[in-house]
Amino acid sequence: MPSNSWPPAVVLREVGPRDGLQSIARILPTAQKREWIRGAWEAGIREIEVGSFVPARLLPQLADTAELVAFGKTLPGLTVSVLVPNLKGAENAMDSGADWMLLPLSVSHAHCLANLRKTPDAVVDEIAAIVARRRERGSPIRLEVGLSTAFGCTLQGRVEVAEVLRLARSVLALGVDRIGLADTVGYGDPRQVGELFAAVRAIAGDRLACGHFHDTRGLGLANVMAALQAGETRFDACLAGIGGCPHAPGSSGNVATEDLVYLFRSMGIATGIDFDRLQAVRRTVAQWLEGETLHGSIARAGLPKSLRAAEAVA
Amino acid sequence: MPSNSWPPAVVLREVGPRDGLQSIARILPTAQKREWIRGAWEAGIREIEVGSFVPARLLPQLADTAELVAFGKTLPGLTVSVLVPNLKGAENAMDSGADWMLLPLSVSHAHCLANLRKTPDAVVDEIAAIVARRRERGSPIRLEVGLSTAFGCTLQGRVEVAEVLRLARSVLALGVDRIGLADTVGYGDPRQVGELFAAVRAIAGDRLACGHFHDTRGLGLANVMAALQAGETRFDACLAGIGGCPHAPGSSGNVATEDLVYLFRSMGIATGIDFDRLQAVRRTVAQWLEGETLHGSIARAGLPKSLRAAEAVA
Repeated sequence: MPSNSWPPAVVLREVGPRDGLQSIARILPTAQKREWIRGAWEAGIREIEVGSFVPARLLPQLADTAELVAFGKTLPGLTVSVLVPNLKGAENAMDSGADWMLLPLSVSHAHCLANLRKTPDAVVDEIAAIVARRRERGSPIRLEVGLSTAFGCTLQGRVEVAEVLRLARSVLALGVDRIGLADTVGYGDPRQVGELFAAVRAIAGDRLACGHFHDTRGLGLANVMAALQAGETRFDACLAGIGGCPHAPGSSGNVATEDLVYLFRSMGIATGIDFDRLQAVRRTVAQWLEGETLHGSIARAGLPKSLRAAEAVA
Repeated sequence: MPSNSWPPAVVLREVGPRDGLQSIARILPTAQKREWIRGAWEAGIREIEVGSFVPARLLPQLADTAELVAFGKTLPGLTVSVLVPNLKGAENAMDSGADWMLLPLSVSHAHCLANLRKTPDAVVDEIAAIVARRRERGSPIRLEVGLSTAFGCTLQGRVEVAEVLRLARSVLALGVDRIGLADTVGYGDPRQVGELFAAVRAIAGDRLACGHFHDTRGLGLANVMAALQAGETRFDACLAGIGGCPHAPGSSGNVATEDLVYLFRSMGIATGIDFDRLQAVRRTVAQWLEGETLHGSIARAGLPKSLRAAEAVA
């Protein structure tokens, strides 16, 4: 790819307060989550997934989601999103005033059953009900469908491209606002990522607007690059690379927000995020999560002298 | 990059017995190094940098290099390379029967002085003397010049592209057989890597034939991908991601051979290397290096089920 075809900017959505915390047993107090969200916003992050409208008995870590949506909406310019597993969750999301709701549709039949206790086609029916309900209510909330396990599944193994495309077409036809492709378990490789983003973009156009990658096997940033080269400019990331999926064994390590900020900054692609402030948020959250396994390379190694010098001059 | 433009195969050179061990204080017995080299060869690796002809008082870890060259030459099909810092080392390399000698030419003036106690231009003069001496002796050994710190330097900070190109032209004009670009300290980013490989290839053609990357800041594999997309098909790698440079503070973590084998295998690009056998070599060497920091993602996470299933069918 010639250098002049890199995009000038990308959008990173911080998913740590949802994706990160849902895979950690301990419950962070709401006040700490607020501090995290405010810190991320002060560092320049403008999209945060603050929680999930799932029953509190299933994920007590995320029981304060409505409160966090309300808090997020007090931060100027912040787009607040929440995960919803079904129509009931979507109703809560509409009630909450969140800007976006994200519904995960596992392309893997096995993972979809484990995660939402429905087949993928039953989830598509649920999405149709959500779209209809949103219309009835006249709700301004927007709906993103994340096609998860799109690159393979720890339960099922291979996931067919044809099935990704079939489900993408189904939900696009329902009128969802955007879709994303998620490598939920860290199975994707750069060739596969480039090819699948190109294939889905051919049917979704700009409605394909999220890449969600895990660094479980070290290919996270190479996969981000492959999606970028296939035209993607919006990525999920998780502070300190925490996160995973409770229903996908061995799924761990979202790409770390700090690593993505460093990657794009080193390439001269704007994220709007201040690296040093983000590192400070990481240090704070790391204290709260003491004992948990954190990830990410740049937090350990620090910025290159070349980058610091270039910025001092600029 | 369209999928049909990926190369069918790449070459990985294992540099662990030199680059890896030179940055570890303990001295592995020659018998263990032989077992490592044989194991790597049995796993399918066909190029190994077995040591360095530097004075034993400077790097006692590598004092058995001549013996390891002789051993390596007993393994059918193995290309044996050694590092040489100067004419004296090159004479030893010619005496040893090695196939290739690698001379590191730091583009960073500061690093060049720290590493070889010469300016880059004085190193170019030394390379001229080596080429002349090789001609006089009628030696069949081939000479590769590694342009190190080509993407930045922990001592000096920025390294100018113009300086990389000037030094590349100089050594190409001397008739060296090939040159490589090395991110000695893990400062490179994918954009820079793609652009520099393209610029150097424009003057070196196929004589540009090595990418040497460190994963210090998490961008190692993304940088390998960028070089691959710029036409590079030969890469250095280090078992368990050990290695660094004793004269470049903070330089650590070559890209792990296992991670590169996994990356290429997942993309359907042949390396000729058996993953499971390589993992077994890693386990053995890890025992010998107990207490040292090892790196690499795939060794921890294991191959995806999707890849295993695909191979069982094939």
